Amino acid sequence: MPKTAVTVLGLGSMGAALADAFLAAGHPTTVWNRTASKVDPLVARGARRAGTAEDSVRASPLIITCLTTYDDTRAVLEAASLNGRALVTLNTGSPAGARRMAEWATSRGARFLDGAVKNIPSAVGAPDTLLYYGGDKAVFDEHVDTLRVLGGDTVHLGEEPDLAALYEMAVGGTLLPALVGFFQGAAALRSRGLEAETLLPYATKWFEMIISALPMYTKEIDSRDYSDPSASVDIFHAGAAADLELAEEGVDVEWQRPLHDLVRRAAEAGHGDRSIAVLTELLSAGAGGSSTTAKRPKRPADPP
Amino acid sequence: MPKTAVTVLGLGSMGAALADAFLAAGHPTTVWNRTASKVDPLVARGARRAGTAEDSVRASPLIITCLTTYDDTRAVLEAASLNGRALVTLNTGSPAGARRMAEWATSRGARFLDGAVKNIPSAVGAPDTLLYYGGDKAVFDEHVDTLRVLGGDTVHLGEEPDLAALYEMAVGGTLLPALVGFFQGAAALRSRGLEAETLLPYATKWFEMIISALPMYTKEIDSRDYSDPSASVDIFHAGAAADLELAEEGVDVEWQRPLHDLVRRAAEAGHGDRSIAVLTELLSAGAGGSSTTAKRPKRPADPP
Repeated sequence: MPKTAVTVLGLGSMGAALADAFLAAGHPTTVWNRTASKVDPLVARGARRAGTAEDSVRASPLIITCLTTYDDTRAVLEAASLNGRALVTLNTGSPAGARRMAEWATSRGARFLDGAVKNIPSAVGAPDTLLYYGGDKAVFDEHVDTLRVLGGDTVHLGEEPDLAALYEMAVGGTLLPALVGFFQGAAALRSRGLEAETLLPYATKWFEMIISALPMYTKEIDSRDYSDPSASVDIFHAGAAADLELAEEGVDVEWQRPLHDLVRRAAEAGHGDRSIAVLTELLSAGAGGSSTTAKRPKRPADPP
Repeated sequence: MPKTAVTVLGLGSMGAALADAFLAAGHPTTVWNRTASKVDPLVARGARRAGTAEDSVRASPLIITCLTTYDDTRAVLEAASLNGRALVTLNTGSPAGARRMAEWATSRGARFLDGAVKNIPSAVGAPDTLLYYGGDKAVFDEHVDTLRVLGGDTVHLGEEPDLAALYEMAVGGTLLPALVGFFQGAAALRSRGLEAETLLPYATKWFEMIISALPMYTKEIDSRDYSDPSASVDIFHAGAAADLELAEEGVDVEWQRPLHDLVRRAAEAGHGDRSIAVLTELLSAGAGGSSTTAKRPKRPADPP
């Protein structure tokens, strides 16, 4: 059976890696980029050059965009005929942005998926590289073999077109805070003339400990039963004062204050002897999530 | 050669685990606890009961305390004769608190080490369990075989008595921010009726990615060369706006604002195209650490 023809728009380091993976797997691959010079190396490796974005869309039933934002994507596709095309966007953005993109795409007659590549460009195509998608399940099922060319761990999260963007933010929200915590530790050591490298083995073991505790926390969050804590709100509350003493070592600890406020509010709300995971209730309070009698949440694979 | 006699003061879950490890290794072990009922099970397993804290200190050359704070430790040892004793404190506290404790102990004639058990009580005695110590190297060398009974990965960080407390804070500073980031993600999913459990495989891969990036960051921090970023300040600066859009999903994202301020200040200071690890310079700015021409920091093992 002939391989599905694919078009890739946007040839930054990630887009070029996607196009190369399709070429390596034998898919007829049409490419387009605003700056034409990025097209040449891919054409040299067998890709078809499209004169315009519109031409590139005409060339294939499956259209992959890897542009910077949803706004950029709409601007590039403005004059293209999307009717009946399967459109897959792989850029970063908010869930709200993904919903707007989906609305625009379907109003143009496209069948829509939004996804995310959970790895670096050099990992595209590897068997354990993760990509997840939200949106039209029929499109996913029709093209799953082609999509799996980009990474062996290819997942459909559900019919809602903003699910990949939602999971991106839910997953990625640990990065900056965890890094700033690590950089603060490095700053504390530097204040004593010690190298950050000496922190590395201990920080690594510590993050591994955090990973090993996540299943326990997810269980507490999903059951809303925080009554048997391995680490209580009170323990973190007591630790907050000591954390701030790092300022004595010449380190800026001000960024931690809202975190400590959150812990203090939890303690004041009577959660002191409950698991620290109860902070989830405070963080979702705006959505009425503080009730502990809400119905059990579903999994993405559950039927709607 | 007979095993060194050891005294353990403070028999909470960690202190009891320490005493049990010494008993299992055949060390004559004397125990004391303010609440005497905690002593009985250890005596049943072969420990010697001391009538008072003072008696317990008289019983052994090596004294291990596992009390809640340094203040508690001083209160318990107030009337004890510490002259010539090796005193090892294993409680949480700040570097400044450890320095005060060391001053007090040495003024009483004790030889002092402060340490930390980097694991849970049930892991005490395991070959890969990490304990690190700061303080009198001669005490560490004299008793290292006995200390290693508590965990195979036993490390002397340096002569300064507050080094274990300093590393504790430097390592532990990632825990609360990383967890709050994860809980925020769980809250975002809950706002859509999705279980936190569905986040688990992705969050795990994400933390593993963070671990794999730490050696790169430590290299940048120690060399103060941030010029070849895999993730730049500008990328995080651009992402901050999207992060705040999670508020549209009914999640409290206010705790992130000081983190975004830090990133913005770095961008405004002209670090936009440098690695995000340059935040270390801002966090240590109070200590004059913002100079990039300071001398290369040393490792704990370097001679003073």
